[in-house]
Amino acid sequence: MDNFKFCSPTEFIFGRGVEKSTGEALKRYGAGKVMIVYGSDRIKRDGLLAEVTASLDKEGIAWTEFGGISPNPTAASVYAGIGKAVEEGVDFLLAIGGGSPIDAAKAIALGAVYSGDFWDFYGGGETPVAALPVGVVLTIPAAGSEGSGNSVITNEATHQKISVRYPTMLRPRFAIMNPELTYSLPFFQTACGVVDMMAHIFERYFSPTTGTQLVDAYSEAILRDIMDQALSVKLDGNNYDARADIMWAGTLAHNGLCGVGKVEDWASHRIEHELSAFYDVAHGAGLAVIIPAWMKFCAELNPDKLWRFAINVMSVDPAGKSTDQIIEEGIEELKYFYHDLGLTTNLRELIGKEPDIDMLVKSLHRNMGDTLGAYVPLSMDDCRKIYQLALEG
Amino acid sequence: MDNFKFCSPTEFIFGRGVEKSTGEALKRYGAGKVMIVYGSDRIKRDGLLAEVTASLDKEGIAWTEFGGISPNPTAASVYAGIGKAVEEGVDFLLAIGGGSPIDAAKAIALGAVYSGDFWDFYGGGETPVAALPVGVVLTIPAAGSEGSGNSVITNEATHQKISVRYPTMLRPRFAIMNPELTYSLPFFQTACGVVDMMAHIFERYFSPTTGTQLVDAYSEAILRDIMDQALSVKLDGNNYDARADIMWAGTLAHNGLCGVGKVEDWASHRIEHELSAFYDVAHGAGLAVIIPAWMKFCAELNPDKLWRFAINVMSVDPAGKSTDQIIEEGIEELKYFYHDLGLTTNLRELIGKEPDIDMLVKSLHRNMGDTLGAYVPLSMDDCRKIYQLALEG
Repeated sequence: MDNFKFCSPTEFIFGRGVEKSTGEALKRYGAGKVMIVYGSDRIKRDGLLAEVTASLDKEGIAWTEFGGISPNPTAASVYAGIGKAVEEGVDFLLAIGGGSPIDAAKAIALGAVYSGDFWDFYGGGETPVAALPVGVVLTIPAAGSEGSGNSVITNEATHQKISVRYPTMLRPRFAIMNPELTYSLPFFQTACGVVDMMAHIFERYFSPTTGTQLVDAYSEAILRDIMDQALSVKLDGNNYDARADIMWAGTLAHNGLCGVGKVEDWASHRIEHELSAFYDVAHGAGLAVIIPAWMKFCAELNPDKLWRFAINVMSVDPAGKSTDQIIEEGIEELKYFYHDLGLTTNLRELIGKEPDIDMLVKSLHRNMGDTLGAYVPLSMDDCRKIYQLALEG
Repeated sequence: MDNFKFCSPTEFIFGRGVEKSTGEALKRYGAGKVMIVYGSDRIKRDGLLAEVTASLDKEGIAWTEFGGISPNPTAASVYAGIGKAVEEGVDFLLAIGGGSPIDAAKAIALGAVYSGDFWDFYGGGETPVAALPVGVVLTIPAAGSEGSGNSVITNEATHQKISVRYPTMLRPRFAIMNPELTYSLPFFQTACGVVDMMAHIFERYFSPTTGTQLVDAYSEAILRDIMDQALSVKLDGNNYDARADIMWAGTLAHNGLCGVGKVEDWASHRIEHELSAFYDVAHGAGLAVIIPAWMKFCAELNPDKLWRFAINVMSVDPAGKSTDQIIEEGIEELKYFYHDLGLTTNLRELIGKEPDIDMLVKSLHRNMGDTLGAYVPLSMDDCRKIYQLALEG
């Protein structure tokens, strides 16, 4: 096990009806004027925005709203949000939704107290020194952004999707998490969320670090439960305990707990980000295509953890099988699970046309340099092979 | 799953050599003058105190020391510590050791900024409004006090051992955790620590709350790993990864993660506290006697979770066995494990004489009222039966 630091200072306020306490939480964390950052008008139609703003009004907290954040949130929307935050003089950002509005709110939080271009912190190598505080009302469990200091923004002008990590500055002060708010999610979105949170664990589970039995064991337990509960939700979208497990698992998958003492990988995420940036596919749907291809590529070069994964997570019975067979069966089981969720594991099927792999690799190279990953360090040629393997998925 | 709040703001600084960064951490958290609270002179002999104070000197942080905290720390030592802290005008407490100095430091932290008697917050029903900040250098993983807001103090004058929980006020700002510092622990102390941390998970695992599959699954994974690693440490006390897993598991067992969304039990701890208070046995050694007796008592009244425990934690093969048999085998396996650690599960053997069960029950009643526990709510008569069952262990 490697040395590590772990701290999870976000206050998670979890359960039925907790959105009614949003105003009380904001007051406790010193909010004066809040900008509510959200995506579609769904939260207006279903009454959530009204409920949250009523709780702010009750505490005498001023607020303004900034909606329309798209999936894979764009730099353009961040610029607009910064403009409004500065103009209105807000001192706190409240994201309502999933990873997209949370990540956008974090970017706005950086830009609103910076005289330059916020993109300096994403593509430009600058390090921020301050940010507005951010709170969250979570409605889509997936990105884990409610408990992390990460933010991913897509710059449409440059076709770049860049992820940053500023744990001290960007970690939300609190996250309001009511599983009931996820009942109405279309199953496709639930499925993409499940794939994403599992991938957050994979990026840490598949590590070159050895001697990590404890963290591996609880990571496997979380992965198995996510899969169980996803299939329960498929049968009944209003299963509270299943929705609750998925929501809490999404947080644990990305608040650092599953990565303690390990070198993390993140190659699959980077390889997928190019798909989202160029073909505007849902991040989780892209991962369902990339991860099995990545596993297949790594199987020969570093089989150990893939073997353990097959047995301990995918419940492959190892009796009488070779290591290769066990690993292959584990990957196949994972693909069946993705198919069960209604997702394709074939890249061509995902984007509805022939991918331009040259373009993807060129962009990946520009964003990430010559190599990425750690479980198996990948050259750009290896990444090309992974895109190609994804055509056979 | 019940509603919950979870927040783990303590910064865990974990790994080889991290004690050298104690001064840096204290500076970051604003320490001006520090009182170092510790137990025996072992930390002088093995050079740890010198190493830590050198790191304080390097950062220009003034310090004084207060040693001699005993296992089951006493109110008397807390009074003395408060006296010294006030006299020396310290603004930060640094505990070096395990649960005893940490719990004592927390009590001193409360008393040093209070004009009355600190015991008001333990036995007297008063709620504190302030405390000095506490940091930790952990050398005995067991109590989980490095990541909790709990403190347990024994009042020798009144034969009371009282546990309090003030998560916001008493939670350490940081915990320095180097597994190498535990290499030299006598195996008996390692064993007692292992029993204690497992009990911290049991107190949450055995809950009347249903629909808690995720938290149960990762709790089981942590329990299994603790047992594995304890047996590895028995073979080789210098096994870094095993020591590291046990240390990290001790924190996760008690920082709240394993209790999210559940009603907790804590009957076994309360029943054991009377043993420690009257017979001065090590807390973990007392738990090894009480827990199997408690399980045996609960088996008929609420078998479900004991059945799951037997299969998922103690690896009992359920094929062809009745529920009763499975549970009994699970309890027997746990007892074998305690015996493997060199601990007795028999109360008479533990204290070396016939226990005064009337006195124990009377004191328990005075400290805890008419009932305790939640998995099976216990009357005082039930607790008497548990002490009696512990004679057969």
